[in-house]
Amino acid sequence: MAAPRSCLRLLDQTKLPEFEKYVDCDRVDQIVDAIQRLVVRGAPALGAVGALGVAVAMYEGERHCWDRARLDHEILRVRDARPTAANLAVGVERVKPLIDDGVDAVVAEALAYVAEDEWANRRLSALGADWILDRVGHRPVRVLTHCNTGSLATTSWGTGLGLVRELHVRGELGLVYVDETRPLLQGSRLTSWELTQDGIEHVVQVDGAAASTILRGLADVAIVGADRIADNGDTANKIGSVGVALACADAGIPFVVAAPSTTVDSATATGEGIEIEMRSSTEVVAFGGSATAPAGSRGFNPAFDITPARLINAIVTELGVVEPHAVSSMRDHFARRASSAST
Amino acid sequence: MAAPRSCLRLLDQTKLPEFEKYVDCDRVDQIVDAIQRLVVRGAPALGAVGALGVAVAMYEGERHCWDRARLDHEILRVRDARPTAANLAVGVERVKPLIDDGVDAVVAEALAYVAEDEWANRRLSALGADWILDRVGHRPVRVLTHCNTGSLATTSWGTGLGLVRELHVRGELGLVYVDETRPLLQGSRLTSWELTQDGIEHVVQVDGAAASTILRGLADVAIVGADRIADNGDTANKIGSVGVALACADAGIPFVVAAPSTTVDSATATGEGIEIEMRSSTEVVAFGGSATAPAGSRGFNPAFDITPARLINAIVTELGVVEPHAVSSMRDHFARRASSAST
Repeated sequence: MAAPRSCLRLLDQTKLPEFEKYVDCDRVDQIVDAIQRLVVRGAPALGAVGALGVAVAMYEGERHCWDRARLDHEILRVRDARPTAANLAVGVERVKPLIDDGVDAVVAEALAYVAEDEWANRRLSALGADWILDRVGHRPVRVLTHCNTGSLATTSWGTGLGLVRELHVRGELGLVYVDETRPLLQGSRLTSWELTQDGIEHVVQVDGAAASTILRGLADVAIVGADRIADNGDTANKIGSVGVALACADAGIPFVVAAPSTTVDSATATGEGIEIEMRSSTEVVAFGGSATAPAGSRGFNPAFDITPARLINAIVTELGVVEPHAVSSMRDHFARRASSAST
Repeated sequence: MAAPRSCLRLLDQTKLPEFEKYVDCDRVDQIVDAIQRLVVRGAPALGAVGALGVAVAMYEGERHCWDRARLDHEILRVRDARPTAANLAVGVERVKPLIDDGVDAVVAEALAYVAEDEWANRRLSALGADWILDRVGHRPVRVLTHCNTGSLATTSWGTGLGLVRELHVRGELGLVYVDETRPLLQGSRLTSWELTQDGIEHVVQVDGAAASTILRGLADVAIVGADRIADNGDTANKIGSVGVALACADAGIPFVVAAPSTTVDSATATGEGIEIEMRSSTEVVAFGGSATAPAGSRGFNPAFDITPARLINAIVTELGVVEPHAVSSMRDHFARRASSAST
């Protein structure tokens, strides 16, 4: 992701792993389209696109002499392009107070957000690896992942996959089981691509295989990301995550959620308050342009599911590792940590 | 499926729903290939192919003057073409004692097996519908299915899908959630095709959606088939089944296995004794001829998983409904039932 003067360049994730193509956005329409078509996806990456998207809107507004009401409307379109990821709104809101200071100030703040995201990813990866190595006896640690939580989903390094990279760097990583993650195959297309580039040994499996891989004792820990974390620890993540969590609970291995603290939405009390994006039927009943179901079949396509806090062993953020069963409120927990750190 | 004098005609399930093509088999090689490529699949259908396959082997042997040792060897190839489904061997063994009586006797016995399979499917469907309507309060009953257990998987009517049809006939069926069932999409390609032909309202979902559909209270019961049932009730079925069972247990809705009693393999004490077929990596890392993962990626592709008896609420066969927690041995249970029925 790069931000030359008036254009946001995005690696088109819908074309990976076959093609490495870029999409240049210098209009809000293009940014909204890129977000909705998943040219760019992943909660932390969406946060960066939200922040930089405000700058793109300002440049477009300058070219077309938008008044402030129009600019605000267009920024709202960026913020609401997808409903589930908390970070998209966080990125937009982070830079909005600087609009009156001009576009350079907005770009600078957005780039600061990007830099902080990378720092947060590296920090949470280290904290998460410590936590896992403390609790998992098997060496090397065999990991199961769902969806893509690597550098493609963030600004760099990754959250869940950052933690996998950290275990790899420490020489403690065994085989990685990559859920392919239907319908859009972020696991087989994107996670496998990132792991291949890093030379990390892995296998791709269908999502239905996750539960038996875990019950058969082939994995020591499951690591996923998060699109939104409610105040009680309930977590929205890519469809299929809660099934992985149920298998971990049954097998007695940890289910770990890795995300920057910006993913925590303390204003939402529980998972019931999180809106789940429903995506097009076509993603399910067709593949690569050809139908996989009879004509007229309808696909049911929620993009995310909610994993209740009771099934999550650890929520790993750059601020520390939270074990949800031990806290009643993520906000209060972080506030207590911050106040005890400052005294 | 039909059996003219020396040729077994199979509807090619790999081509559905796009094309309705048939494969004619008059050689053992063709039958083994059809079984391994899943031109025909589904445990009860494989039983019929096993029985009729013996006849095809006898015709081929006549044409090529095989001695008995060669014939036995070829019949063994049919029996062992896939390792997990119990019924394939049951079908072969059913007709083998009649080989010395000639091919007409073998064909007659095979066709009797086919007729019995349909009767068993209709009987178990009625028993299973009774059991479900007794225990599920919600009307109409919303069902989640995995893989294909309809007429394509049997000789006619279906096992799990037969039960769905029975609920439909009784006017008690609500929306059916069809797991697409990666990697080979038997749910979206085959189950959706059968339900569409019957005018049964359904939606197709990715396998990862099953757990959240169940936890959100959208389904009242999950119904699957079985490829082999161990004596303690542990059940081998299409990969992804145990994940559905875990979600049902968590949500407190019944997980129902429907299969003819020939699927019960009393010689195998528990699920640990069931061999799980590992299929080609290509089924996972490619789709419709194009790669879904980077070059060099390996797929991990177990075709089945084991659902432990503790997660199964009912095993429905034509002999009755068994609640696995209440019996320690399927064989003893059926023996007791048979002796009490005859006294």
